[in-house]
Amino acid sequence: MRPDINAARLLNRLNELAQITDPGQPYTRRAFTPLYEQGRAWLQVEMQDAGLTVYMDEGGNLTGQRSGQQPDAPSLMLGSHTDTVVGGGRYDGILGVLAALEVAHALHDAGHELRHTLEVVDFLSEEPSDYGASCVGSRALAGTLTPELLAQTNSDGETLESAMHRAGARPELLGGPLREAGSVAAYLELHIEQGPVLEAAGVPIGVVSGIVGIERWELSFTGRQGHAGTTPMHLRQDALVAAANCTSVLQRLALEASHFEPLVATVGQLQVSPGNSNVIPGEVVLVFEARALEAARLSEFVAGFLAKAEQQASMFGVQLTSRLVSRAAPLSCDPRIQQAVQSACTDLNLACLTLPSGAGHDTMQVGRLAPAGMLFVPSVGGRSHTPDERTRKADLIAGARALLGAVLKLDEAFGM
Amino acid sequence: MRPDINAARLLNRLNELAQITDPGQPYTRRAFTPLYEQGRAWLQVEMQDAGLTVYMDEGGNLTGQRSGQQPDAPSLMLGSHTDTVVGGGRYDGILGVLAALEVAHALHDAGHELRHTLEVVDFLSEEPSDYGASCVGSRALAGTLTPELLAQTNSDGETLESAMHRAGARPELLGGPLREAGSVAAYLELHIEQGPVLEAAGVPIGVVSGIVGIERWELSFTGRQGHAGTTPMHLRQDALVAAANCTSVLQRLALEASHFEPLVATVGQLQVSPGNSNVIPGEVVLVFEARALEAARLSEFVAGFLAKAEQQASMFGVQLTSRLVSRAAPLSCDPRIQQAVQSACTDLNLACLTLPSGAGHDTMQVGRLAPAGMLFVPSVGGRSHTPDERTRKADLIAGARALLGAVLKLDEAFGM
Repeated sequence: MRPDINAARLLNRLNELAQITDPGQPYTRRAFTPLYEQGRAWLQVEMQDAGLTVYMDEGGNLTGQRSGQQPDAPSLMLGSHTDTVVGGGRYDGILGVLAALEVAHALHDAGHELRHTLEVVDFLSEEPSDYGASCVGSRALAGTLTPELLAQTNSDGETLESAMHRAGARPELLGGPLREAGSVAAYLELHIEQGPVLEAAGVPIGVVSGIVGIERWELSFTGRQGHAGTTPMHLRQDALVAAANCTSVLQRLALEASHFEPLVATVGQLQVSPGNSNVIPGEVVLVFEARALEAARLSEFVAGFLAKAEQQASMFGVQLTSRLVSRAAPLSCDPRIQQAVQSACTDLNLACLTLPSGAGHDTMQVGRLAPAGMLFVPSVGGRSHTPDERTRKADLIAGARALLGAVLKLDEAFGM
Repeated sequence: MRPDINAARLLNRLNELAQITDPGQPYTRRAFTPLYEQGRAWLQVEMQDAGLTVYMDEGGNLTGQRSGQQPDAPSLMLGSHTDTVVGGGRYDGILGVLAALEVAHALHDAGHELRHTLEVVDFLSEEPSDYGASCVGSRALAGTLTPELLAQTNSDGETLESAMHRAGARPELLGGPLREAGSVAAYLELHIEQGPVLEAAGVPIGVVSGIVGIERWELSFTGRQGHAGTTPMHLRQDALVAAANCTSVLQRLALEASHFEPLVATVGQLQVSPGNSNVIPGEVVLVFEARALEAARLSEFVAGFLAKAEQQASMFGVQLTSRLVSRAAPLSCDPRIQQAVQSACTDLNLACLTLPSGAGHDTMQVGRLAPAGMLFVPSVGGRSHTPDERTRKADLIAGARALLGAVLKLDEAFGM
């Protein structure tokens, strides 16, 4: 019997986990809280129902294992996360875990034995945690959960390390990656797009080409504060005019570049001092970020913008200083995994298109350890991190089918 | 004997009044405080030393009078204010009062009798008061201190009316203007420029052509909040990009216009929501103001900008709503008074240039009652409302000399 997704069971599980939420602000199931533990206890039972052997690794990742024909072979890993932001949605992360579970359950129902061992992973605390770090569990897996991150505290002064203990992890055993090189043949994560591209294109499946790198910079514009009535236009050094022109320039440069490559840039924060209606702003601080699939191209874009920003500022007699806030390297998805998803879509008669992921995911971490890839399903209105986050039922089911199809392809394609 | 300014006496008085300050944050002498009363008590003695008859009018304006040859004739009025902002300067307002006092003292020393009665006025609370209103005393004089303004309270719940009582005013007697039409032949106020124009031009005296009108507007940009990583550039409705472009447009339009007329425009406030570096701003609220000498031209400029702002916003798929926050009509300075100041400067061999006042002053109120005018002296670096506010000694003295010269001209020029 050819294994197939049980759509009703998948939708039912999505509904059941959605019930485990802070009732005052759905959907909230923050990592390290009793509600989160309750969700994972439920998940453990569901994993066992699907015939999986459940264990928690040292990083606090709840893992269900289905042995393959050759138990010593590297495994195929599927996963995502069940924690949410405050007032988040029902699908972000959750769909990836429950669809992976459904894939395993479908294999179990059909009595289909893969060549590889299959692992379904609920990674610990993917969303930005109360302890600062995000992707806690997948970082632990990849060996990138540093002592500095473990020592960070929440507002009550509890360290991340203590919180992980409470969650059943053994952070004292962390040091390098939790898996040996080559022990994971491929990692695949299904996720909602959290953007508008698939919906705008009317396509149910996105094959992710890579996860963009991010550079985030703070720009400080220092002009000359002055009386808005008595300072003629040509004698001004208006920090806000300089910052506004730079914001426009960034948008134009990114829009132009985006015709040829996946690149975005955004000014999300901007503060004006002193901020009185009758005072020419003397100081503006803004934070911008740019994202692109290639690290070199990203740096080139940022450098080009910073040079133009410098020109703009000096045109207005304003001093500009820039400071790198953070830099995350991009990840390229493994071409064989992209190929497996595309080929599964063809078999299932599902349209797909290739796109980058503009958001970070557990895949970003796991990809440091093993060949990795992602597939997306559409987000209605591109919305996420809100209770209004939604994916059409047909798309949820299509995503799970494509995930199952890709697993079957990978099981054949990847060497043992 | 031709009357002349006693420069040492003027500078000495400026120093003496500067000592009456909150020692913790010089120079602070807020209206309605004991320090302010102390300053006025000192001023009253100085006025008497200068041969003036001192009284306080119903509006709380401390007035020193020097009778002219024809006591029933309308008077020449000179004045400004001795209150300060918190952490203000030594000259803003103060120079106008003490130079007017020095003019009267010089006439007294020289035994020079004017045709007109001369009045030296220290207007009550010109700076924005703790009760909301500014120009309290000059409003009372002009009959524009409304019951609504009198009923406003400070943070302790005291009304402006009660505070005025404490200051020796009789607000219960206010109703219309305190002077009959025609009873003031001319009003002239010497003030520091509070802007950079005279210093940049290297000119000691500014002849004020008028006080600009102000329109202040709030613009709300409503776009679509979105994930800064997952929303492609061409699918964005970024409220900040729209607002930034409008800020640039306002600056360009005002700079162009200012080549032909005294006009300024400023965005002094701008708030971004939600203000996270990884979120496309969904909402921006800014406040801009424009100032010009002609009411019709000001409205035309604002209307032109609002139309362009509308275009900018819709270009980025952002909705724009605009709301008038406040509007103040401009005041034209009396041409005969401007002429008197210019002519006095010529006699004194002082360079002068004509410029508008971009800031409001007591003249704005008195001008509703009588022909009014102003002259400016340079502000070093254009600075005011700071302890660093400064005017060169030579310019302080030149200002007082020009004021005296103008009074002598006006005394001849104006009919009785």
